[in-house]
Amino acid sequence: MHIVVSGGAGFLGSHLCETLLDRGDSVTCVDNLVTGREENLSHIRKNPRFTFLTVDVTDRDALDLALGDVPVDAVAHLASAASPPDYHRIPLETLLVGSRGTENMLELADRHGARFILASTSEVYGDPAVHPQREDYWGNVNPTGPRSVYDEAKRYAEAVTTAYGRSRGTNVGIVRIFNTYGPRMRAIDGRVVTSFIAQALNGDSLSIYGDGSQTRSFCYVDDLIRGLIALLDSTETGPVNIGNPAERTVASLAELIVALSGSQSEIEYFPLPIDDPTRRKPNIDLAMRSLQWSPRVGILQGLKQTIAWFASRPEEVRNAAPFLVGGQPDGQSDSPTSDTSLDRLYAEPAA
Amino acid sequence: MHIVVSGGAGFLGSHLCETLLDRGDSVTCVDNLVTGREENLSHIRKNPRFTFLTVDVTDRDALDLALGDVPVDAVAHLASAASPPDYHRIPLETLLVGSRGTENMLELADRHGARFILASTSEVYGDPAVHPQREDYWGNVNPTGPRSVYDEAKRYAEAVTTAYGRSRGTNVGIVRIFNTYGPRMRAIDGRVVTSFIAQALNGDSLSIYGDGSQTRSFCYVDDLIRGLIALLDSTETGPVNIGNPAERTVASLAELIVALSGSQSEIEYFPLPIDDPTRRKPNIDLAMRSLQWSPRVGILQGLKQTIAWFASRPEEVRNAAPFLVGGQPDGQSDSPTSDTSLDRLYAEPAA
Repeated sequence: MHIVVSGGAGFLGSHLCETLLDRGDSVTCVDNLVTGREENLSHIRKNPRFTFLTVDVTDRDALDLALGDVPVDAVAHLASAASPPDYHRIPLETLLVGSRGTENMLELADRHGARFILASTSEVYGDPAVHPQREDYWGNVNPTGPRSVYDEAKRYAEAVTTAYGRSRGTNVGIVRIFNTYGPRMRAIDGRVVTSFIAQALNGDSLSIYGDGSQTRSFCYVDDLIRGLIALLDSTETGPVNIGNPAERTVASLAELIVALSGSQSEIEYFPLPIDDPTRRKPNIDLAMRSLQWSPRVGILQGLKQTIAWFASRPEEVRNAAPFLVGGQPDGQSDSPTSDTSLDRLYAEPAA
Repeated sequence: MHIVVSGGAGFLGSHLCETLLDRGDSVTCVDNLVTGREENLSHIRKNPRFTFLTVDVTDRDALDLALGDVPVDAVAHLASAASPPDYHRIPLETLLVGSRGTENMLELADRHGARFILASTSEVYGDPAVHPQREDYWGNVNPTGPRSVYDEAKRYAEAVTTAYGRSRGTNVGIVRIFNTYGPRMRAIDGRVVTSFIAQALNGDSLSIYGDGSQTRSFCYVDDLIRGLIALLDSTETGPVNIGNPAERTVASLAELIVALSGSQSEIEYFPLPIDDPTRRKPNIDLAMRSLQWSPRVGILQGLKQTIAWFASRPEEVRNAAPFLVGGQPDGQSDSPTSDTSLDRLYAEPAA
């Protein structure tokens, strides 16, 4: 198969490209390198079945020109800023890659009669009122809140993907990706796993906001990629949740990371910003049933590999320190509500 | 002031153009006439302060070319299919005018340092869990349901409008428009007021789904336009609800329309589709406080004028009959849930 992967130089995208090449597919990666990194692809750049194109998928003409007439069997649309520090920096671009970017990739798939999968997100559930989240939960997102540039872009992407499936008969599938971690994350992406690892490796205190009893669930990247490929190979429309439902407290995660990295770091507690960070935990019944998928990698194994990867990049980890001491750029933003105070200011004109 | 009105040939747009001209503004109407009608503008076409441009606002180049370099003081973005029969017919175009159309109009406003107002909708509240709806309610919309082509397009439009305000400093305002009725609606738009009026004028039975005890709230178009202009003239960011909070039952509406039109029509009851149609009723505290706006036109006066308008177009009303007998195109679709059965089919993969 020839598969076009947008956002293929990103954390998840580069793992997807690599795994597809490993099983014998041809892969064309398109990425504008705004949040993706070429070094994520360094080990596959010389593979004759791999092509890298620096192109912005929101530019239809540039995309068509770059891709030419080579037949395409599948399209995986992963391109987007995905962490709060990134999408707050480029809000309009984030909206655009969710709307026009998705439309352009859908047009590409439709033209080739190719399978299309959209990398959507658990963020479409927003601040969920039900727990764990099943795919038929409609979510709780503030359309004019600070996070709406990401959340509403992805909800729109789901709507347009569904509309192509219904009105054009395009072979579409939507995956809602929950928190994922592993090698090739960026030390300054503002997420709790990377922040803790960077602090532990730097010998700095790990910053916990609140008492650490709040829970998160994390999926190791290899599991996530296996789920993406299962969806790619299926005709499942979705949306289908892919994530690891195992919950653990933020405090236990911090302790585990200190232990596994052989660090002497202490754990420091800071006041919790206004609202308690939201829990998100996938119900994965649909993925288990329709894709025969479930996560396999435990937290110990996953963290070991992630820590080892960051340990081999001491400079990046050291350079991240100024962004992490005293608080990550967007709080511990695997939670969606670290900017709730802003949400509130804006959302309650009638208060 | 020179005001550009997108969707200016539509029901609300044409009333807005007319009212702005009446008070001395210059108005450029841009409309691709997909759901708008030139005849809505026939009485103002000769006004020297009025310009009509047949242009699709999703086409940036065509828009810029058509508008030229004339300074713009305000932009009112009303362009969109708005009734279910329309947006089900053109789902991809509906999404596009909400995303790219809104972005193009925002760029226009931003370039001219002009005020921008977005005509959003009570549909962003979806199937609301709170009643009446205040602006800080985040809504309950299925991102992959049949209505998502409209609802998510408008939520995206709100997000991108907000993002321009925050990141570019564009002077933006968002209005969420609730059910509105009046002259220049189309007899076949599938809404309950127009369907009842057309049935009454044709002497056909008025079709009520369910026992008629379900309630709706309706705003007369003149009130709505006064609210739009108050927002245009303000610096209120919104989102701000504009609608009439007076609720009435569908049965009492049917009786009133039969009485006011001097019709001999009977009222016929049909089974209610799966779920009870949703109530939507605006909380208008914000509009009252920040725009000094509240509705003034009562249902008797509003219906009289609407019935008189349709009565002067007997051919259009007669031609609508085949679409109305035995059920409107999309049920009595002032409610958002007449296609709930489809929503369900699609939304419950994990059921």
